[in-house]
Order: sequence, then C-alpha cells, then structure tokens
Amino acid sequence: MELQPLTDAGRAFVELCEKHAADFAQRADEHDRDGTFPFENVDAMRASGLTAASVPAELGGLGLTSLHDMTVGIERLARGDASTAIAINMHVVTIWMMARAFLDPVVRPKAEGSLSMIFGAVVNAGLIVAVAGSEPGTLAVLNPLVKGEHVDGGYSLTGTKIFGTLSPVAGLFVVPFRYDHKDRDWHGLAWVPRDTPGMRINDDWDALGMRASGSNSIRFENCVVPSSSVVPAGPWGEWNRDVLVTAGAGNLSLVGAFLGIAESAHAYTTEMLKTRRKMPSNTPLAERATLQRAVAENEIELASARATLGRTGSILDEYFAAHPSSTVTIEDLHLVTKEVQVAKTFVQRKAVDVVDRCLQASGGSGYMGRSPLARAYRDVRAGPFMQPFSPNEAYEYIGKVALGLDPYPDL
Amino acid sequence: MELQPLTDAGRAFVELCEKHAADFAQRADEHDRDGTFPFENVDAMRASGLTAASVPAELGGLGLTSLHDMTVGIERLARGDASTAIAINMHVVTIWMMARAFLDPVVRPKAEGSLSMIFGAVVNAGLIVAVAGSEPGTLAVLNPLVKGEHVDGGYSLTGTKIFGTLSPVAGLFVVPFRYDHKDRDWHGLAWVPRDTPGMRINDDWDALGMRASGSNSIRFENCVVPSSSVVPAGPWGEWNRDVLVTAGAGNLSLVGAFLGIAESAHAYTTEMLKTRRKMPSNTPLAERATLQRAVAENEIELASARATLGRTGSILDEYFAAHPSSTVTIEDLHLVTKEVQVAKTFVQRKAVDVVDRCLQASGGSGYMGRSPLARAYRDVRAGPFMQPFSPNEAYEYIGKVALGLDPYPDL
Amino acid sequence: MELQPLTDAGRAFVELCEKHAADFAQRADEHDRDGTFPFENVDAMRASGLTAASVPAELGGLGLTSLHDMTVGIERLARGDASTAIAINMHVVTIWMMARAFLDPVVRPKAEGSLSMIFGAVVNAGLIVAVAGSEPGTLAVLNPLVKGEHVDGGYSLTGTKIFGTLSPVAGLFVVPFRYDHKDRDWHGLAWVPRDTPGMRINDDWDALGMRASGSNSIRFENCVVPSSSVVPAGPWGEWNRDVLVTAGAGNLSLVGAFLGIAESAHAYTTEMLKTRRKMPSNTPLAERATLQRAVAENEIELASARATLGRTGSILDEYFAAHPSSTVTIEDLHLVTKEVQVAKTFVQRKAVDVVDRCLQASGGSGYMGRSPLARAYRDVRAGPFMQPFSPNEAYEYIGKVALGLDPYPDL
Amino acid sequence: MELQPLTDAGRAFVELCEKHAADFAQRADEHDRDGTFPFENVDAMRASGLTAASVPAELGGLGLTSLHDMTVGIERLARGDASTAIAINMHVVTIWMMARAFLDPVVRPKAEGSLSMIFGAVVNAGLIVAVAGSEPGTLAVLNPLVKGEHVDGGYSLTGTKIFGTLSPVAGLFVVPFRYDHKDRDWHGLAWVPRDTPGMRINDDWDALGMRASGSNSIRFENCVVPSSSVVPAGPWGEWNRDVLVTAGAGNLSLVGAFLGIAESAHAYTTEMLKTRRKMPSNTPLAERATLQRAVAENEIELASARATLGRTGSILDEYFAAHPSSTVTIEDLHLVTKEVQVAKTFVQRKAVDVVDRCLQASGGSGYMGRSPLARAYRDVRAGPFMQPFSPNEAYEYIGKVALGLDPYPDL
Repeated sequence: MELQPLTDAGRAFVELCEKHAADFAQRADEHDRDGTFPFENVDAMRASGLTAASVPAELGGLGLTSLHDMTVGIERLARGDASTAIAINMHVVTIWMMARAFLDPVVRPKAEGSLSMIFGAVVNAGLIVAVAGSEPGTLAVLNPLVKGEHVDGGYSLTGTKIFGTLSPVAGLFVVPFRYDHKDRDWHGLAWVPRDTPGMRINDDWDALGMRASGSNSIRFENCVVPSSSVVPAGPWGEWNRDVLVTAGAGNLSLVGAFLGIAESAHAYTTEMLKTRRKMPSNTPLAERATLQRAVAENEIELASARATLGRTGSILDEYFAAHPSSTVTIEDLHLVTKEVQVAKTFVQRKAVDVVDRCLQASGGSGYMGRSPLARAYRDVRAGPFMQPFSPNEAYEYIGKVALGLDPYPDL
Repeated sequence: MELQPLTDAGRAFVELCEKHAADFAQRADEHDRDGTFPFENVDAMRASGLTAASVPAELGGLGLTSLHDMTVGIERLARGDASTAIAINMHVVTIWMMARAFLDPVVRPKAEGSLSMIFGAVVNAGLIVAVAGSEPGTLAVLNPLVKGEHVDGGYSLTGTKIFGTLSPVAGLFVVPFRYDHKDRDWHGLAWVPRDTPGMRINDDWDALGMRASGSNSIRFENCVVPSSSVVPAGPWGEWNRDVLVTAGAGNLSLVGAFLGIAESAHAYTTEMLKTRRKMPSNTPLAERATLQRAVAENEIELASARATLGRTGSILDEYFAAHPSSTVTIEDLHLVTKEVQVAKTFVQRKAVDVVDRCLQASGGSGYMGRSPLARAYRDVRAGPFMQPFSPNEAYEYIGKVALGLDPYPDL
Repeated sequence: MELQPLTDAGRAFVELCEKHAADFAQRADEHDRDGTFPFENVDAMRASGLTAASVPAELGGLGLTSLHDMTVGIERLARGDASTAIAINMHVVTIWMMARAFLDPVVRPKAEGSLSMIFGAVVNAGLIVAVAGSEPGTLAVLNPLVKGEHVDGGYSLTGTKIFGTLSPVAGLFVVPFRYDHKDRDWHGLAWVPRDTPGMRINDDWDALGMRASGSNSIRFENCVVPSSSVVPAGPWGEWNRDVLVTAGAGNLSLVGAFLGIAESAHAYTTEMLKTRRKMPSNTPLAERATLQRAVAENEIELASARATLGRTGSILDEYFAAHPSSTVTIEDLHLVTKEVQVAKTFVQRKAVDVVDRCLQASGGSGYMGRSPLARAYRDVRAGPFMQPFSPNEAYEYIGKVALGLDPYPDL
Repeated sequence: MELQPLTDAGRAFVELCEKHAADFAQRADEHDRDGTFPFENVDAMRASGLTAASVPAELGGLGLTSLHDMTVGIERLARGDASTAIAINMHVVTIWMMARAFLDPVVRPKAEGSLSMIFGAVVNAGLIVAVAGSEPGTLAVLNPLVKGEHVDGGYSLTGTKIFGTLSPVAGLFVVPFRYDHKDRDWHGLAWVPRDTPGMRINDDWDALGMRASGSNSIRFENCVVPSSSVVPAGPWGEWNRDVLVTAGAGNLSLVGAFLGIAESAHAYTTEMLKTRRKMPSNTPLAERATLQRAVAENEIELASARATLGRTGSILDEYFAAHPSSTVTIEDLHLVTKEVQVAKTFVQRKAVDVVDRCLQASGGSGYMGRSPLARAYRDVRAGPFMQPFSPNEAYEYIGKVALGLDPYPDL
C-alpha cells in the first residue's frame, strides 16, 4: 500500500533512493550520536546520479519533474536516514525549480547560460546547491533581514542565517536578503558560492534531532556578491512568486521525509510485536488487544498520510505541468500552497503521532538511547518547524485562503 | 479539490447524483422532522436511471463498475440528503455485486437467468433491492441469528432484522440466515420478495439521525422461501467471500455519504462566516483568528478524508478489475477489507469532527432545531455504527490483519 | 468518587437536587420529545424549597453561598433532566449574586429594601428570576444591543434577546441593555417584571437539545422600565464587575450540568455493558477489550472533569468569601474568570467526548430516538455555546489573561 | 494556582524541594548532556534532611505521611531537575511505606527493630533505599522472573533487573523475586545491601531522557540473601497487597514529577512569548492569536492535571489514614489503585502534550540541543512507561475495575 512513483524518471529516482536508504541506515545511528555530517552519503548520491535527479535529461540528469515522485523518493530515503533525506531534498528541489525555468521557453533565453553551467556542475562535478533562507525573529518568506548594502558592482551582505541544512557540502547557496530599491525595501535572492569572502559557515548544528543534517548557521559579514548573481524577487514584505514556489508549493517532498520516518518506525514496531513475548501470558505481544489497537491507529494514520501526500503531489504535478514558470500567478500559488500546507500540517503531525504510538507500543525498550524509535522520536519532531509555515502560522494561512482572504499574517 | 469520477459511467452517475442532490436538499429538513421516507426521491431516481447505475450497460444500466466513482456519487447525493444517499447506496452496491457475478465468465452461465431478470426489473420496473443483514446481539457478517427451518422445498425463516434501510420501497431483500447443513450450522443468503407471507416490515424507524432512511426492523415468522432463492454462503460463524465483498470490501460508497455530510456542513459554515458579523468589532466573522483556525482544521480533515477515500476507491477498483467474482480469496479479501475499514474508521470519525467544528463556529445558530448543522450533527453520527465493523470492532480487525493474524474477533 | 458538597447548606441543597433528579428523570424523555417546558418540575422545586436555595437563611432560604456546592447540586439535577438543571441554575445563581449584595455591609443599606422584597417573593410566592442576556450578533457581556431610549421616569427598551432560558415561568427578568449617558453609550441592567407592556416572550424554543429549557426569544418593543429598576453597570463595551461576576466567575454551576449529563450517560453505559451479550462469543460486552478501553477513557475524563470542577469551585469560594461584593476588582475578576473559563472549556468538551464514547460503546442501540444516550448526545452539545465565552472566544480570553494582557477580544 | 501542601510536614518538605530545585536546575543540562548521575544533588538532599522526609518524626524525620504533599514536593523538585526528582522519589516512597508499617500498632512489634535501624541509617548516615523491580519481558508487579534458589539459610538470586533508578547511590535495594514454596511459585521481596557478593550494578543507563536518573541495569548472579532479609509477598502471579501499595496506589508522587516538567516548560515558554518579537509585525509573540491559543490549551491541561493530581492525592490520604498497613485489602486497593492509574494516565499524557505545545510555540528555538524544552521533550516522554502500568496495560486495568471485573491482565 506504499506510495509508488508515477513517471519513468520518478521510478528511476525512487529506485536509487531505496538503494541508498538501505546503505545509509547502517550509519544513521552513529552520525546521530556524534552529530556528524554524512559526507560519504553525499558522495554516494553524487556517484549514483541521485544528486542530478532533477537536472533535465537533455543535460545529463534523470529529468525528474514530478513532485509526487520526488516526494516518494525522499520518503524512501528517510526510512534509512532522515537527516540525509531532508538535506539532499533541499538540493533536489532547488534544481527542480531551476529546471522549470530552463524548460519554460519564455524564461530560457535569458537564463540558459547560467543554468546550463550549474546543471553541468551538478552532473559532472557533484555540485550541491542549498538555500540559506531561515533567520531568527522573522518569517523568512516575507521578510528576510540579512541586509545587502549597495557597493560597486553589487551588494555587500551582512546578517545571519540559521538552519542552513546541507551547508557542509553545498558549493552554492541561494540567499534571500533585503536591499534598498527605488525608495523602498526590496527582496532579492543572491547566489553565493562557497568560500566567498565574508561568508562563514559555522560548525554549530546541535539539535534535538536531525543531528546529521548539517543545518549550521551561516554568518555574512560584508560578503560581496556581484549584481549578476542577484535575482530580484519583489518588494520586501510582500508575497512573491519565486519564493512561494520554492518554499511553499514546491516543497512537498520535504514532508515526504516525515512520512518515511513514521513508516520506518511502524515497520520496526510491527516486527517487534510479532516476535517479542511478555509474562504473564508469554504469548507474542501481537496478540494483545491494546497493541493491536495501537497498530490499527498507526495503519489508519499512515494510510491517510500517504493518501494525502500522494493526492497533493498529483495536484501539484497537474498545476505545474499546465503552468510553465513564467505563467504562475500569486493568486494561483496561494491556492496551491494552501493544499501543500494542508498536507504538511496533516502529515507532519500524524508522523509525530505515529512515532509516539510506536514508542508506547515498544514498552520501555524504545526509550533506550540507541533504539531507532528514540531517534525517530527526536527526528520526527523537526517536521512542524519546517519552512515555510509552522502550525503557528499554517492554520492562519490555510484558513484565510479558504475564506477568500489575503493570507498575509495578521501579526 | 473535490473528488472527481475516473470513468465514463462514473461521470454519468455523479452528474445524476448532483442533480438529484440539489432537488432532494429542499425536502430533507421536512422528512427529517417528520421521520418520513422520501418516496418521491426514489421515484425521481428511478425516472432518471440512477437506480440502474450499476446494472451492466448491455442490459440497460449505466454500467457503473468503479467503486471509486460510486463513492463519489454517493458523496454528492449526501450533500443534499444523507438519508436518501445511504438508502439508495445499499441498492446500488448490491446490484454492483450482482453485476460482478454476471460479468464473470465462470459464474455467468449458472446465474445469468436470474440475474438478467432482476436487472430487467431494475431497469424497466424500478425494482429496488435491499439487504436485511443487521440483527441485535450479533456480528451479522459472521453469525446471523435468523433461523431457517428446513421445510418442503425450502426454508421457513423466523427472526428479526434491524436497520433495514430502504425497506419502505424495496421489492426484494437479501436476508442472511442460519440453517442446519451436514451436522453443522450454515450461513445462507435468502432472496425474499416483498410481501412474502410471514415477512413484516415494521414502521418503527425513529432514530437520532438519518431519520428518512426507512431503516425499519423486519420480522420474519415462518416465512417460507424456496431453495432456489437461497445461496449458501459458507459455514456459520466463519468468514465467507460473498459477505466480505458486500459488507466489507465493497461498501466504500457508504462511507462517501459521511464525507458528503461533512463537506456540506463546511461549505455552509464557510459561507456564513464570510457574511455574518458580530460585535464588538462588527467585522465579518471570517476575520477572526479562532474561526480561521476552525476552517483550517476542517480543510485539513476534509482534504485527508477525500484523499483517503479516493485512494482506497482506486485500490478497490484495481483489485476487483484484476479479480473476477470467482477468483477472490478470503486472504486477499481481508487485505482489501482492511483498507476499507481503515478508510471507514478514518473518514467517518473525521466527518463527525468536521461537523462538530462547524457547529462550534456557528455560534449558537447551528444549535437551532432547523439548522442544517443540527441535522448534520445527528446524521453524521450514524457513520461509525455502520456495517460491518463499528470502531469497537474495526481496530481489532485492522490490527490483526496488519500483524498477520486471523482477524476473527476474540470476543 | 463523585463530588461531595462541603458546607451544610450545600449538603441540604444537593440532597434536594438528588431527590428531584430521580423524579424528573421519569418525564425527561417526554418533554424532550415534545419540546415542552416542565412546569411541574418548577412547581416541585418551589414546594421543596430548592428555588430558595441561595436566599440568605435569615430570610427563609437555605443560605447556600458555596459555588462549589451549587455546582455539585446542579450536576446531580442534570443527571435526571439536564434542561431543568440549566433552567433552574439561572435562577439560583442570580439569587446568589443578589444575596452577595445583601450580605455585604457596604452594599446592603442601599439595596436591602428591594432585595428583601425579592427574597420574600422567592420564598413565599415561588418567584423565579431569569436573565435575558444573549443577543444575536454580539458578545453580550460587553455589548448588549437592546436599546433603552430615555423616557419620562425611565427607559423604553427595544430589541430582541435570545436563549431566554426559564422564560416560561420567570416572574422577573434581568435585562442588560444599552443607553446614552454623558455623551457615550452606557451598559445597564433592567429588572423587568413579567407581563410588563411591550415585552413579549415568544414560544419559539426549538433546538437540537435542551429542548425543555424554555429558552425562548424575548422581544422588547417600547417596553418602559422605571429608572428605579435600572442598575448602571458601566460604560458600554467595557468590562464591568457585575457582569463578570454573574456571567463569568459566578456561573460555574452551569458547567456542572454538563458533567451530570456525562456521568449519567456513563453510568447507563456501564450497566448495559455488564449485562448485554453479543455473538459470536456471547459473553457480556464488559469482557471485550475495546469496551473496557472506552470505559477506561471515560473514567479518566470524568475523574479529571470532576477534579477540575471541584478545585475551581473551591477557588471561587475562597475568593468570594474573602471579597464581599463591593471589594472585587476587574483585575481580580479576570484572574478568577480565567479559571472558570478553563474549567468550562475543559469540562464541557470532555462531557461531549464522554457521551460520544458512550454512544459508540452502545453499538447501534444508543442511536435509537428514545435512548437516553441519543438525548444526552443532543443535550451535551449545548455546553460549549453557553455564556459567556464559547471556545471561539474562551481560548483568546484565557491566553491573554495568562500572558498578562487585557483579555478584551481582538475582533 | 499551583498545588499547595496540606500538612505541616508537607509544607516543610515542599519548601525543601523548592530550594533544592533552584539549585539543581543549574546543573541539569550538564548532567543530561553527559548522562552523569548527580551525586552532589543527593548529598545536598541528605544534608538538608530531605532524604529523611518520610521517616517518622519520632525517629528524626519530617514525618511526611501525606501522599498529596509528597506529590507536590516531587513536582516542585522536577521543575528544577526531573531526573533527580524521579530518583529521590523512589527512596521517599519506599520509606513512606516502611513508616506505614512502623506506625501500624499491629505490624510494629514484629518489624520495629529492623525498621528503626533503617530509619536511623537514613537519618544519620544518609542511607538511600531503592527498588529494583522492573525486568524485561514481564509485568513485574505480578511476575518477577529473577529466581531465588533455596540455599542454606536463605536464597541465591539470579537474574537481571532494569530501570534501576537511583542505583548509583542506593545502599539498600528491595528486590522482588520468585522462589519455590509449598509446591508452587512464590513472590518475595528481598532486601539486598549494596556490595552484596553476586550483585553487580552496571553503568549502562543511556536513554532518550531522564539521563541523570541512574536507572542502570542490575545483575544478580548467585547473590545470596539470608531468609531474615526476605519478606514473602504472596503467590507468584497473583495480586498482592504490599506490591499494590508500593507500585500502584502509593506511587502518585512519581506522577508529580511529570506535572513539574510540564509546568516548568510552560513557564519558560510564557516568559519567552512575552518578550520575543518576530517580523513582519515585530510585536511581542504574546499578541499572536495562535500563540495565545497554545498558552490557553496549556493552561487548561495544566489546570486539569493539577486538579486531578491534587484530588487523587487527597483520596489516597483519606484512604491510607483510615486503613493502617495491616488492614488494607486487595479489593480496596484495586479501587484506590484504579484512581491512581486514572491520574497517572491522564497527567502523564497531558504533560507530554503540554511540552509538545511549548516546543511548537517556541518556533525553532526549542528544538536546539541545549534548550530546556528539548530536554523536557525527552524527559517527559518517560512518564507513560513508568511502573506499574503503561497505557498499554492501564486502560485494561482501569476498565476492568470500573466494570467490576478482576483486573488481572488477559494477555
């Protein structure tokens, strides 16, 4: 009953993900313990071609365009190692967005040169792209606070990004920032290569879970980027298309990772219940009514999470296939993003609940430090915090769109 | 974002359901008030051909075979009148099961005559078929208690059925019963025409909700049916294929009715919030954060309910298309029925929750006797009780199947 | 483990309530069916002295001052007939508030005459007092919309009140209204005797539940009340002490009614499970794991609801004992009212959940129209709507007070 | 609104707990990080007299007999350091049980000598007592698996205990075990001094949370204890009084620790919301409706948890005051233990929910490794696993007792 890819490129992608997952699973506990980044996992994904999944086929990638299938692949990967799954997801989604621009006949002429170069580097040199979006104290999709001062030929960035997932290996960072433009603030996206002077990737990721995702903070201090590397996104503090696509509508695959964690915990628990016995009866735990109920509740929540994720993926694929990059509108995007936030809110919460129920069904054993359930309990809780809207904001966003209001946050 | 039919016959069926729903909605409150059966609704569905939906096309029906699409149609119907929706659903599903037998080249030779006759009566004479399955104090799919004594040329039935939905208009009833066979109890299905001597349809349906469904009790007292009208289903108290298909796997469409109730309540509430105002602010209620949240929670639950129902429908369609009537096995059926019970348990509970939230969002107005929300609150609560497994039993069934155990109930 | 009264007057009150409950239970179904007001119940409570419960002992009442004990009594009464319980509660609480004024040495001199007269009428003539507060489209504790035009010697009221519980028998109504005062709107409480010209008590209460509470709408049309019958409460649209005490802090006993409904449903269900049997096992339903769990969940929620209600009652009693009528402050009242809203929100939701679980455990039988569970399902849902804050408003109120903000509603 | 002690000894105990909590809080993060046992905390509690809290006053202790007040104190302690709180709780409860024996005129004559010696060691030498009860694969209150072979003058114990909380400092362990007695298995309690040959306290506690509780496994291998150190508890596999009191009815204070964790997380979060600001609005987070709601939900759950814990404590105190050690019966104990399990199941789940909501309200900051919320998230999840019944078993136990059945587990 698990989700299945619907396109050929998707099938190839999911197959790769499944192979890597089996391998990564063996080292996941150790990286979690030590809080180390799994460089060898990224190398393996470069070698297998997974990191080129969303590069157009004509340029040597798998040509993965289906967000449904991307979600399925990330979900499979997360069954093995959730940290690696959310890390590489950021890269795959970002390349997908660039491929959309490349495949749009209107956009392509202007962007073909730089995009081809990036795709080439991904395919041939294992380039990894990351987004350094989040900042403390602001809703990054609307109001990035990193400031870009105008300097000769470009901008000098100063400020701090957090949750810089994938930063230990990324060679190129997309950095939303703020600058003055025509008497008002403007929101721009800077493409910043690793090792640009003035950019420092800290080694400070130390969290409750997702400990191997390399989500370090990144400090910019007079970090100069040329104007040619900056894409204006729109007025600062207003909704804009590019950001809504990347962070909002387009990022369903991130949610897949949390389904993967829950599925993995449930499979582990079910196997355990079939074999473990307990006094006084000494029959397999599977025969106990309470544990059958816990399994049933998980089956129900996993089935509904899978269905919701799958259906939302298909809705996205249909929308994006019908709307090339240059034709999407803010109005449309809110409707689509609403569906993604619905799926995000639902699936990430259900994933938390499923893991909690697995832990409970495990008796005390799941609470032991090296139990995969203990890791799942910590990893899965990252979900609701993820971009663009935590539940703190998502309910307002969904409710307003459903009621026909502008979803701009009240406070 | 609502569910859409996937087949041509399904599209025709759903279109009919939508038309009828708009009409039935106008009388739903009155029938609910008076507890009267909507004879005129059934007449309208006979006239439109809806009652022949699942009759094979070659015999004059719509040829509806997709359970996915049947579910969507019943859901649409329930938006207008939930009682009528669950009533006619019983007929449509039963005919669907007969059509499966008819379309199976192995079964057809034996059954063609009687099935054609019934299909003809449905198409030409508006025959309605109902199942009189439930009984107090037993799990009817395993242990019907109505007793069939052997008499010359047949069986004499005695006992009582309850929840005989659609009984005011049904011309033919499928009646599970119990009889002696080769030194043990056997489970049979009797086809009993209305007005058979010894059968009395009481006029006693008076419930909290679904008050227009005509779910009367039916008393059998020395009601003789010929052997030719009896189909042996298997040993009494054991799982059997036919019953699992009809009551278990095949009855997803019944669940659709409860989604329809919830969708209707949500649409009503959303409209109300857009226009109604309240002091002290006197702005539209839609602008209040709490009500936005209630709407968002409903959007989330409706989206996941729709997705779950839709995906389960497609799983059923795939399974039944690949397995003609004579080739299904108990083992397979448990796996498929498990998915249906997962969807049933999830969707019917979410439907209850959505309606509750609508009621809450309505302020006091939804609590008024003639509010559609007050009716929805009563109707929607019928869902979890429905055949074959209430939540009391469904968790055990789902859990056991998922754990690889025989789902036969412990107690 | 049920709640017990803590004072002598409380013990007398609870004993009366228990006696009446046993009697009222016999007619509750009939009044619910017919939507009739139980005049005979009110007569019985007049005869027993229950209607004089909160009249000071020195004036012939029971001298009930403990809100804890009042809550326990109303809970007992609701086990028999919830409609009667919430109806008479309004009278008992209102008299309690008047008794507080009477017992405060600062207030007494000014109010003694009129209060004594009312207490006398309650004790000797069976006078019933009601509050006609709610109005559509406004939060009545802040912004009553019934308008009082200045006329010679008083005010002429025009407007409509709804949910006028107890109106079929009340001889005197407290009516919050709005009038001009010193260049701004003012909030006043008018004491209006039944049959005052211009006041019409409609016979239009027809709701989902609480069908015997007589909560009719009341129309005022140029209904003149003398100035001597009007108590100024404060500026319109601002918090004021008297209203916060009556509708907010003081009305915990109303919540007791919903605990009573849930306890009664649980007791009924538990008894049923002990005796009813079901095939295939034919053992008592009590032996089934799922039903044991339902019972356990109800035990947990009832225990926590009882504890919460009991503790909140004691907090109230302590606060009001230490603060005579004239010494309470808005700031204090918000803190106390917050606790009452916490208890209200918690207990009324748990009561809804407990009844739902009873219904589920009943199998289909609870869904039958005359089952006490079907009535409980309808009655209990009234709780969250009740004054002063539905959950729509209560979360905001509680959250703001807890965060040290003014709880005035944002919208 | 926090819980307050009701006895003089309780007030002294709670005051000590509050002082220690402020101190322990400063080192809690470090011990959690390193998984080290807080020896210095135990030393401080010895020095202050806290470890002698439940020693009878006549023998130099605080004479704490109220379980209500013990619960309040442990809750206060857990606000500072939950690991230390659950560790020392085990000692305090065990001594309380011994004090009950000592204070019962029937039991005292037999037990006075040994009890006085232990009390003396607690008061004068800082002796710590622990219970090594849990074992993998069994329900320890019924079926301990550690085996005691009969040897000359006593028993030779072999087997493994887990979750041996407090083991790094305990000088004396109560060890439930199994031995042959009159042709059947018998359940005994052995009092085993630290460093008895054949007993090895492993240094292997490494869990998701409660990392400073020292809950090591303990291996017994031919560990000989004299008969004089063994108390027969009853037939193996049957309910017995002593075990029901210690592990069941008497251990409410353990639940207090989880309330303390939740209160502490809530207080931290509320303070944070008052001061932290976020773009775009840059107003304090406290003004956001979603966060007000999270705070309100926590207020509701904390209030109901406090009330439930407080009421259950008072019920216990009343029961144990009326029933000296020698007069309790299994029947009574099931009724009382049921109430404790109700409180345990409710409070520990609500504590988990409150912490989850705090984490959510924190935005991403609570997910950081050194956030007190991250620790609370891990610590609080230990609650439901705790002795004697996890939710896996508690629902069955509660349901059966409520339905008048023997709560012996079905499987």
